Amino acid sequence: MLQSSLFTKTLREAPKDEQARNAQFLVRGGYVDKLMAGVYSFLPLGLRVLSNIERIIREEMNAIGGQEVRMPALHPIENYKTTGREDIDVLFHLETNTGQNMVLGQSHEEVVVPLVKKYVESYRDLPVSVYQIQTKFRNELRPKSGIFRGREFLMKDLYSFHADEKDFEVYYEKAKEAYTKVFERVGLGKSTLMTFASGGTFSKYSHEYQTITDAGEDDIYICKACNIAVNKEVMGDLEGTCPKCKEKLPTEATRAIEVGNIFPLKSKYSDAFQLTYKDKEGKPRPVIMGCYGIGLSRLMGAVAEVQSDDKGIMWPDEVAPFRVHIIPLSEKSNGEAQKLYDELVEKGLEVLLDDREDLSAGQKFGDADLIGIPWRVVISDKTLADDKIEVKHRTEKDANLITQKEFLKLVLY
Amino acid sequence: MLQSSLFTKTLREAPKDEQARNAQFLVRGGYVDKLMAGVYSFLPLGLRVLSNIERIIREEMNAIGGQEVRMPALHPIENYKTTGREDIDVLFHLETNTGQNMVLGQSHEEVVVPLVKKYVESYRDLPVSVYQIQTKFRNELRPKSGIFRGREFLMKDLYSFHADEKDFEVYYEKAKEAYTKVFERVGLGKSTLMTFASGGTFSKYSHEYQTITDAGEDDIYICKACNIAVNKEVMGDLEGTCPKCKEKLPTEATRAIEVGNIFPLKSKYSDAFQLTYKDKEGKPRPVIMGCYGIGLSRLMGAVAEVQSDDKGIMWPDEVAPFRVHIIPLSEKSNGEAQKLYDELVEKGLEVLLDDREDLSAGQKFGDADLIGIPWRVVISDKTLADDKIEVKHRTEKDANLITQKEFLKLVLY
Repeated sequence: MLQSSLFTKTLREAPKDEQARNAQFLVRGGYVDKLMAGVYSFLPLGLRVLSNIERIIREEMNAIGGQEVRMPALHPIENYKTTGREDIDVLFHLETNTGQNMVLGQSHEEVVVPLVKKYVESYRDLPVSVYQIQTKFRNELRPKSGIFRGREFLMKDLYSFHADEKDFEVYYEKAKEAYTKVFERVGLGKSTLMTFASGGTFSKYSHEYQTITDAGEDDIYICKACNIAVNKEVMGDLEGTCPKCKEKLPTEATRAIEVGNIFPLKSKYSDAFQLTYKDKEGKPRPVIMGCYGIGLSRLMGAVAEVQSDDKGIMWPDEVAPFRVHIIPLSEKSNGEAQKLYDELVEKGLEVLLDDREDLSAGQKFGDADLIGIPWRVVISDKTLADDKIEVKHRTEKDANLITQKEFLKLVLY
Repeated sequence: MLQSSLFTKTLREAPKDEQARNAQFLVRGGYVDKLMAGVYSFLPLGLRVLSNIERIIREEMNAIGGQEVRMPALHPIENYKTTGREDIDVLFHLETNTGQNMVLGQSHEEVVVPLVKKYVESYRDLPVSVYQIQTKFRNELRPKSGIFRGREFLMKDLYSFHADEKDFEVYYEKAKEAYTKVFERVGLGKSTLMTFASGGTFSKYSHEYQTITDAGEDDIYICKACNIAVNKEVMGDLEGTCPKCKEKLPTEATRAIEVGNIFPLKSKYSDAFQLTYKDKEGKPRPVIMGCYGIGLSRLMGAVAEVQSDDKGIMWPDEVAPFRVHIIPLSEKSNGEAQKLYDELVEKGLEVLLDDREDLSAGQKFGDADLIGIPWRVVISDKTLADDKIEVKHRTEKDANLITQKEFLKLVLY
């Protein structure tokens, strides 16, 4: 893409109402725009990142047998009376012109269970694993930290349905592995820990995925031996010990943001909607469920928060809006830049070419650091004289003069 | 995909509350599920079709320079007071926990204009063309006809911004061509007509794209010479003549469904939000706008309605959930079916393999006709004896015994 064709521009100043580093960079870089507290537009660069995250999650959910659907956001209130959740305070309420009361979906148990019930009759129809990537709404009292806690946000929610606890547990472990892969691929592998958290009223524990960052909202206690963590809320239950190795956990908390969670639902929702199946003897039995969520927009914020320095974002390869950022610095280098651009695009790479006029090298470099594309390629009269290009990776300090051929080897791994 | 792994099943009976043919087939085939009037879930097969339509529209919008974004569904009511649209009756109203009044977006002029205003200063920043594929909400009094008129539906809305009328008009014609391509690619080219309709209070005419079907909601008058139409609502204004060739239009109306519309907005919304730009002389001028919509879920319904017979849907190639439906009819043919499945998938084709057990040939054929995948391939002891496969296109009456090699030539065009 030609940078001059982008309708957004980078902003010099961070908006005063955005405190989190990720929000400042995302707004300044032209990734997102705030419409009101907790409600953001995703601009061309931002939608590219979000779509990359979406693709990664879709691939990993398909790999564990998830069947993708798209359920609606408008839910009849009756379904929430069935589960006793009609009064939870994050629900947005609204009314149709015909007087029907509805809520906006903040989660989809109330829709997916009646849906799956239509198709599950016998043990032969199980297990079932259904997911969607869809917009959720939460009436948050204090939406904050940019796209971390939104009133409206993109989420992947998967629901699994099983004949018994044993089958559920096997799937739950597969889901854990898939989640680990997702966080590795988006570049948060090292800073994200599987964390024991409260299981609500019907399960002892659920499992959160917490990314370490000072901008987070949770306190976790990390067992360095096992590389897992415990959420503050269950430290008492666990008597301050690691649930895996039983060793004493540190007394000092680490700040983190929850980027995903998986939850054993037992038969809570199947009981509410009478979702049963007939076993081999023809006897009706309750279906055992699990649910598995990842907030995509929150995950994007977490990547921008963790993978950044003072100058801007440092997107990991798989989520970056473009892989290569080409910056020509003279009229003479424009032609060579366009040639390299064409060649890289032809080889299937996503490339941004900074063809903007009347900007200094300093301005262009500043924007490149802010936007945070992994590879920056500078072409100038000086590099042309050497028949080379100046290549710098966003995470490295120094640039190198190399040939185009050497660069191709670097990016086409 | 293995058909046995689909969690949905085909239904023998059409639901009593679904009258439109497309809704009956889509529900019976396991494409969509109704949660409440005008609110549907898209099931695995349905989401595949919807995603194909999405891809086609995205490609055509990118081709005319559209930059994809994703704007939110939650809108502050203040923006509607600015445009005077706060009382239109299709708006869903809701309130935040902090007492702020909001509406759910039924269109996005109130969001996109303030957004673009942040980046447009001078004539150098124009034209701009921004689009999204996003969920809209309308508080319809009478949602009906399956997914034709929903309370919640997927829509592509593009907004273009220009320095003057002339630049707008050039783009408007390009958009018309892109729309024609979209309707051709989804298989509605022959039955969809560009139609003159009311332009509202600020433009003389807008242009609708109307697909001819008895299940439609509009009456149009077709000029056969020009292959365009006129909506009943402007027949009086046009004195019953074709706006192109000025010949008399027929007196008999044709029933049709609106699947898209494009609309000159002049400076109605730019004036409301004071979106101006500085011309070459530094003088502020109003930005001229156009908007361009296509309802994706409605379009899917229109394809299912128009491209169907008494037995079910006949999906055109580019929107079909799968290209090939392989049906083995004996235990012996299962192995051969799996081999052909692997080969086609390896060649990049989307294939559904009916590996379900305990079903008669008649039941499998009935489901195949209902689901409507373009190519049906039957493998049986009889075809194996001949070293051939039985191939039938969904739109043709007769099947042919051909070799696998001949079939590959047919589908890998």
